[in-house]
Amino acid sequence: MSDVSPLDLEGIRIAIEQARKSYSEGGIPIGGALIASPSQKILGSGHNQRIQKASPILHGETAALEDAGRLQADVYRHATMFTTLSPCSMCTGAILLYKIPRVVIGENETFMGEENLLRSRGVEVVVLNNQECKDLMKKFIEEKPEEWLEDIGEPASK
Amino acid sequence: MSDVSPLDLEGIRIAIEQARKSYSEGGIPIGGALIASPSQKILGSGHNQRIQKASPILHGETAALEDAGRLQADVYRHATMFTTLSPCSMCTGAILLYKIPRVVIGENETFMGEENLLRSRGVEVVVLNNQECKDLMKKFIEEKPEEWLEDIGEPASK
Ligand SMILES: [Ca+2]
Ligand SMILES: [Ca+2]
Ligand SMILES: [Zn+2]
Ligand SMILES: [Zn+2]
Repeated sequence: MSDVSPLDLEGIRIAIEQARKSYSEGGIPIGGALIASPSQKILGSGHNQRIQKASPILHGETAALEDAGRLQADVYRHATMFTTLSPCSMCTGAILLYKIPRVVIGENETFMGEENLLRSRGVEVVVLNNQECKDLMKKFIEEKPEEWLEDIGEPASK
Repeated sequence: MSDVSPLDLEGIRIAIEQARKSYSEGGIPIGGALIASPSQKILGSGHNQRIQKASPILHGETAALEDAGRLQADVYRHATMFTTLSPCSMCTGAILLYKIPRVVIGENETFMGEENLLRSRGVEVVVLNNQECKDLMKKFIEEKPEEWLEDIGEPASK
């Protein structure tokens, strides 16, 4: 993983902190953070709010965007999106809308998102294969399998 | 437009009502509505909230999803999304995440969204070429061009 910098590890740490916060609230443990370049300013961070706010649109990445608020196009175009889990279609689309050029992903074993679509549109995708991210999701899915399926638009298993 | 039903005209009317509400609040006049099938129940409706709530993620479609709240997978899979304007990448991604099978669009002249991506994933896309939708956006963009560019992730023109 030659493309991983110390800053990336700091970015994913912030996203993991958000995921842990969500878990501690009884929510889905997926977090995100948007960090500017080259200023390294944390523009926004957040976590999945399906359970806490009954929101179907606040995922880790979209919650980070919402926390950042209104930004000029140029800021997004030099930012990195950090997320503990491979981005779903919606979050991928949000990254494409704002032309965020780089996405750092904690893991994609629990769920493989639209990484190919991101790459096909020129976005740099870095997957960290982070064990902490995997363990958090594993624990949550064992505890609340139906909430997890709901989050990815899948029917509850019988 | 043989695929347009009277119900579709009612659905787009609700989306246009939301767009007008947003305009009257000083906001971007794009609205959305999610309607169930076959019950015809209005699951949710909403409008762009960039200006009103400083939100970069509440577009017409995502605001309608948020208004609908948590739904079971099966409900989305029999619903139609109505939107006054061709869906951007983010809203397209949200439609794909929840596997909404059908999207009815007011117009795509002001902005051409990801209709090809929707179709390539099997979503039925109907474009109404609605003059009211076009007129609302034309008026808004003449008044607040920079807010519109910001909404689609584009830099303000010099
Ligand atoms: Ca809600
Ligand atoms: Ca906000
Ligand atoms: Zn997502
Ligand atoms: Zn949109």
